[in-house]
Amino acid sequence: MVQGPLIAERVDVAIVGAGLAGLSAAKALTEAGRSVVVLEAQDRVGGRTLNHTFSDGTVIEIGGQWVGPTQDRLYALAAELGIEHYPTWDQGENLLHRDGKLIRYSGETFGLPAYVLAELGVAQWRIDRLAASVPLEAPWSAAKAERLDSETAASWIRRNVRSSLGRSFLRVIVEAVFSAEPEDISMLHFLFYLHSGGSLDLLTRTAGGAQESRFVGGSQQVSIRLAERLGDAIRLGSPVREISQRSERLSIGGEWGAVEADRVVVAIAPAVIPRISFDPPLSGRRAHLYAKMPPGYVIKCSARYERPFWRDQGLSGQAGSATHPLAVTFDNSPRDGSCGVLVGFLEGSHGRRASALNAEQRRDLVLDGFATYFGEQARRPLEYIDQDWAEEEWIRGGYGAHLGPGVWTQYGHLLREPEGRVHWAGAETSPVWNGYMDGAIRSGERVAEEIIQSP
Amino acid sequence: MVQGPLIAERVDVAIVGAGLAGLSAAKALTEAGRSVVVLEAQDRVGGRTLNHTFSDGTVIEIGGQWVGPTQDRLYALAAELGIEHYPTWDQGENLLHRDGKLIRYSGETFGLPAYVLAELGVAQWRIDRLAASVPLEAPWSAAKAERLDSETAASWIRRNVRSSLGRSFLRVIVEAVFSAEPEDISMLHFLFYLHSGGSLDLLTRTAGGAQESRFVGGSQQVSIRLAERLGDAIRLGSPVREISQRSERLSIGGEWGAVEADRVVVAIAPAVIPRISFDPPLSGRRAHLYAKMPPGYVIKCSARYERPFWRDQGLSGQAGSATHPLAVTFDNSPRDGSCGVLVGFLEGSHGRRASALNAEQRRDLVLDGFATYFGEQARRPLEYIDQDWAEEEWIRGGYGAHLGPGVWTQYGHLLREPEGRVHWAGAETSPVWNGYMDGAIRSGERVAEEIIQSP
Repeated sequence: MVQGPLIAERVDVAIVGAGLAGLSAAKALTEAGRSVVVLEAQDRVGGRTLNHTFSDGTVIEIGGQWVGPTQDRLYALAAELGIEHYPTWDQGENLLHRDGKLIRYSGETFGLPAYVLAELGVAQWRIDRLAASVPLEAPWSAAKAERLDSETAASWIRRNVRSSLGRSFLRVIVEAVFSAEPEDISMLHFLFYLHSGGSLDLLTRTAGGAQESRFVGGSQQVSIRLAERLGDAIRLGSPVREISQRSERLSIGGEWGAVEADRVVVAIAPAVIPRISFDPPLSGRRAHLYAKMPPGYVIKCSARYERPFWRDQGLSGQAGSATHPLAVTFDNSPRDGSCGVLVGFLEGSHGRRASALNAEQRRDLVLDGFATYFGEQARRPLEYIDQDWAEEEWIRGGYGAHLGPGVWTQYGHLLREPEGRVHWAGAETSPVWNGYMDGAIRSGERVAEEIIQSP
Repeated sequence: MVQGPLIAERVDVAIVGAGLAGLSAAKALTEAGRSVVVLEAQDRVGGRTLNHTFSDGTVIEIGGQWVGPTQDRLYALAAELGIEHYPTWDQGENLLHRDGKLIRYSGETFGLPAYVLAELGVAQWRIDRLAASVPLEAPWSAAKAERLDSETAASWIRRNVRSSLGRSFLRVIVEAVFSAEPEDISMLHFLFYLHSGGSLDLLTRTAGGAQESRFVGGSQQVSIRLAERLGDAIRLGSPVREISQRSERLSIGGEWGAVEADRVVVAIAPAVIPRISFDPPLSGRRAHLYAKMPPGYVIKCSARYERPFWRDQGLSGQAGSATHPLAVTFDNSPRDGSCGVLVGFLEGSHGRRASALNAEQRRDLVLDGFATYFGEQARRPLEYIDQDWAEEEWIRGGYGAHLGPGVWTQYGHLLREPEGRVHWAGAETSPVWNGYMDGAIRSGERVAEEIIQSP
């Protein structure tokens, strides 16, 4: 194993990963009187949240950003840390881009013809009813779990939605929520995930939904302030290479040294858990679980303009397209409107294809999307930035991991099950708001409680 | 990074993994005058081939074992190394176990009613015709590649086979070939894989197919003798933790030290590639490729008896069941019939479920399978051994990795594409006999040629 100093530091709990899950676990354990260290591979905290400051001082997020109703743990934590929030810009008409045309709409019509809306309404009713029947703590025990887990969201949509317009609309929705294709996702996972966040409606709405509000100073502030409170318990640049459970105390090591602990919390993305060598090795089934939780593919793209010029045309900045790779956009301007910011997402296969482009080609592609929706002016931003989360070697994708057919029913029960004295946190382990910042916090609080209650 | 000695050993090519792929690459490169080291994490060579010697000296394989027609590179290498082969026992009648009954059959009837055979005949004709149209070097360029890659083998079977008996028969076949469920496998991958080995018929046959012959002394002999030739170029117990391409020469390191090389060949299972830290990190797309190549789940189970008693009843030892977890068995007795050996497989979900049992329960389950097919005598073997490949921390599953929907078309071109001066081998990279020992050897020879031809 990697050698540390002769006398390793000793703590009650070592936490791997300083994202919201790991930091929330550290906070709860510290408050319960336990000593902790948080070992973070990167030189920053925040995991899949990451602020970026434009040259004029405007702060945006190039990772997770929004907060909305029922995300109570995220609201509570932000409030405790003195971080305010404000409504996402949601005034004006939205755009649907299809067949090369732009259709303006407001309200719930999505610019779709009545027969498609009717069909989608029925499909959504079926989806929400099915979703509500999936037990959040144990999706594998749902009625018809095996059957739902044996098909993909794609095949369910094909069977239940007849119009090509309805199908392609639902495809955009799935891609926007999962940054993966409907073909990749088990129907049982799709249903669990919707139920976990409430409903399809809640997940996709701005006002009244998961995109309702933004944090002053950027969402990464939550992690940054948490880390400030935790002080020198946070160890940046400390990738964990090995976790040994061979002795009475666990040994957690890397090229930075080693610590000893009674318990370990692993609070990193499932895709990077296999990078740690466990001794004894993880069980075969757990290894397969992580091998079957690929992350989504998303490149988040932001452009800053002198003004939010689209608002002059009565547009909200929200656009959706079934044909342009930049399939979803939002107005991400600062609260005071001192400049205009558009944010757009290259998700799933669009992201993968765009990752093969060079930086200039990718920028051109994204600005072409903004210009298609909001006019030629959008081609000339003052600043541009994009973030390909798959390129982050300690994270490897966004928004979160998704489960294909057969995974929930055959491996799902392992997600939160400790392996020896190693416990598991992270947004993907949360029954509530799975995959979201709120779910990450809940998972950290849950794992802390699990350890506090351990004999 | 992990520190090695001050002056690291220098070679032309460092090879990661001493399975058939890595060893074949080492052989070809050595013969071309290149200096190599082969860095193997385990304390043995052979990868997914592994011999076991029973107490009476009978050698069996608890990993890959068979060789058959068109596996020319495996035959040639074995011949060169002086390893003989002999026909798999294939006399007597086979058994189909269904609805609690045993049906004896011989020839191609599989014990199935004529209407099912007719239906399966049509399905097989369609499958083989489709498979033949998938270009082995570039499955993503097949006609209708996107469409074939958007569905699973399960949904294709459901659409093309109507009888429940026909469906469940094909399910057993798919599980036996892939050690994964039809739901897990992209139809494009299914077709590519069949074409890669010739046809469904060739893959599943004993005489005249991929299970035709066995090696004297066990298949691991091929790797063992190759390693003997390569001498001290083989380094056991040397897990590679980091590959750095930052300098003119590549640095390959671990707790055992470090070597420097002009080129690196990575010849390990896709599931464990993410355990290596690459500097610079692997591209996001390649990281996703491996995150989307989960291994199959297989537990190979062998029981030794005083005599091959089933032969007295005119049985071949080959049984198939759509209901018992031990779905496929063979007579694996030594050539001279000095004792009787039955081998059976717990594949896919059967394997996963069995992995949760304790050793005794699992043995009972397996012996119950043998006894169901061959009589109560089978419950009392002289010796029993099973091997759960998912538990092997440097391999993590068998027989090989499979590709779900969307992976071939979106990532497939990366499989053999070098990343900088890092080249990729392994059975999963081979156009011919992908996933088999023969494919592994071909991949090693191909990667050696790739390096020899590099500027």
